Amino acid sequence: MTEAQGLLIIASSEADSNLYYACRFLAPDPFVYVDTGGRRLLLMTDLEIDRARAQARVDEVLSYSAYESKARQRWPRPHLADVVTLLLEDVGLGQVEVPASFPLEYADRLRERGIGVRARPDPLFPERLRKSPEEIAAIAASQRHTEAALQAALDALRQSEIRGDLVYRNGRPLTTEDLKKIVNVALMENDCVAQHTIIACGTDGVDPHNEGSGPIRPHQSIVFDIFPRSSPSRYFADMTRTVVKGRASDPLKRMYDAVLAAQLRGIELIRAGASGLAVHSEVAQALERQGFETGVVDGRNQGFFHGTGHGVGLDIHEPPRIGKVDWGLEAGNVVTVEPGLYYPRWGAVRIEDMVVVEPAGCRNLTSFSKETLLEL
Amino acid sequence: MTEAQGLLIIASSEADSNLYYACRFLAPDPFVYVDTGGRRLLLMTDLEIDRARAQARVDEVLSYSAYESKARQRWPRPHLADVVTLLLEDVGLGQVEVPASFPLEYADRLRERGIGVRARPDPLFPERLRKSPEEIAAIAASQRHTEAALQAALDALRQSEIRGDLVYRNGRPLTTEDLKKIVNVALMENDCVAQHTIIACGTDGVDPHNEGSGPIRPHQSIVFDIFPRSSPSRYFADMTRTVVKGRASDPLKRMYDAVLAAQLRGIELIRAGASGLAVHSEVAQALERQGFETGVVDGRNQGFFHGTGHGVGLDIHEPPRIGKVDWGLEAGNVVTVEPGLYYPRWGAVRIEDMVVVEPAGCRNLTSFSKETLLEL
Repeated sequence: MTEAQGLLIIASSEADSNLYYACRFLAPDPFVYVDTGGRRLLLMTDLEIDRARAQARVDEVLSYSAYESKARQRWPRPHLADVVTLLLEDVGLGQVEVPASFPLEYADRLRERGIGVRARPDPLFPERLRKSPEEIAAIAASQRHTEAALQAALDALRQSEIRGDLVYRNGRPLTTEDLKKIVNVALMENDCVAQHTIIACGTDGVDPHNEGSGPIRPHQSIVFDIFPRSSPSRYFADMTRTVVKGRASDPLKRMYDAVLAAQLRGIELIRAGASGLAVHSEVAQALERQGFETGVVDGRNQGFFHGTGHGVGLDIHEPPRIGKVDWGLEAGNVVTVEPGLYYPRWGAVRIEDMVVVEPAGCRNLTSFSKETLLEL
Repeated sequence: MTEAQGLLIIASSEADSNLYYACRFLAPDPFVYVDTGGRRLLLMTDLEIDRARAQARVDEVLSYSAYESKARQRWPRPHLADVVTLLLEDVGLGQVEVPASFPLEYADRLRERGIGVRARPDPLFPERLRKSPEEIAAIAASQRHTEAALQAALDALRQSEIRGDLVYRNGRPLTTEDLKKIVNVALMENDCVAQHTIIACGTDGVDPHNEGSGPIRPHQSIVFDIFPRSSPSRYFADMTRTVVKGRASDPLKRMYDAVLAAQLRGIELIRAGASGLAVHSEVAQALERQGFETGVVDGRNQGFFHGTGHGVGLDIHEPPRIGKVDWGLEAGNVVTVEPGLYYPRWGAVRIEDMVVVEPAGCRNLTSFSKETLLEL
């Protein structure tokens, strides 16, 4: 074998966005992708080969079962990695780079067969972070549907009526589950799939990843964090708004104003060449300057204890990050800006927009209003 | 370090069903799970630690940031795998088993730090294949919602009207996209998330994983393959039916009868102790005996060229398989039985039920009718 080095991916492209990005072919079961440096190949089972030949953006689609037959001449019960060994020999690759997430079982087996295997650190394809105009349009379209879905839920909340410590709609207590169904069905009507939609009322919201459950309570913060994927385009969107059914307490209003000011400050700082860490530090300091402290109180994290933002694209969380690890922002990055404050005594506030990084600033892909804490 | 050996998983439990099965805690970003052989531990970031302590079914939830601080005393910029190295040292594990899918980057780094890392072959947790009564109930509930969604789509098809080579509903041509929306929205109304629903008409259906697109055509096969996940339970269901709007051709009717007979034969053979390979071979032979041959014609796969079935649970495709690789079936397995025939000249037929393997046979979790090719 030669010392040529290529890239090998073995994954399901439904689960692995790098593989989908590389070949634009969607399949539920793992398949093999090889970039020899000049040519890009797929190795597909009989079940998928015809569809792959019609749809995949690669140079050649080869038959897995043909290679498996060849492998059986050398080994009695060939493993997937053995079949891949034959393919790599055929294309003259004695060493390959693989994704950081490459399955250890395959890597160890390939190494036993004499193939050099080295994990390429993330991001596997740095160009994935710089979105093309088409990708930005797809993400913006997903955000439009997200805004429409939130509007539908807020309309339902507006049409509901406070009675005691419950909120009634159509004669029965309105629940977070009811609101999630309104959001998720509205998204599905637009071919967007929402999972783990967060609608967290009162103390539920104080845990940023608590999805929320049970009755909607009046006069408490309600955090809506909605992040669907468009089925046709595969691109995600992400947006958070915080509202109150009834009247907000003064501390909650002050929290809202502080989060909004910090979020606007973050957006102001985002531009190509900015440091994600610097943006995050400034957002955190903006909250602290307004008297909102972060730390562990009574064994629980309080204040602002998550990152300011993350990239969005074919994955809901992807680089660059705007947080404690430094990342340089580049034109074409699509990132969220989502500071929040969480205090068990007062409730939770998070405000999240999605923006495109540009040479001299950023463009907000989110138009949903956020100017004041909405009291419905 | 000692020679004690534990199990280490580093993954997102939303993406990795083994990790969710192990700790029943759902989170979008990767986290660390260690089973020392006696105690099960999680290492969680500040963002997730409180929720993990409340929800995860493990013995202890430790702080990632506390271990990261310790790691910084030894290495200037500790990698996730360095932090895990400290934890493994603390609990006295010098060697660990990891899932076959364990990320190579972490494995290589742990090995550099002196930790022995060995991939445990799939299935990681063999007990996952034997479903408990609660798991079977969850899967059956998902299948009920699947049947209701299919019924809604067939009602729409029944209410439509053939005009020329199109099918009209509400004054415009009915498309596969319309029917998918009916199916997917009906499922979302029941908190089930459907992705990649297949509604494939005519030649689209001849490629088993073509999701289908465009207008519904009369007098052609329409394959509905629906496999949603319940959001509350996380368990999938899976069902396929084939129908015709209008009149089916005689060859298509003969295909349907052959597939139905083969499917019933497969179901008849399924019991604890049966061989998946033997069931698959018998199903394939049943189709062949009725004159339906399998092979490559004009460069395309035709006939029956996929497996007979697969396990269903927290993943849509999981072991055991009923196909060319031998698997022994066990009581409590939930598997699909889904032979199909695909001929470009005539169309596609696939019929899929989901059954539970029992000591002396199997119990069908699917009640949707399949007795004759439905002509709507």
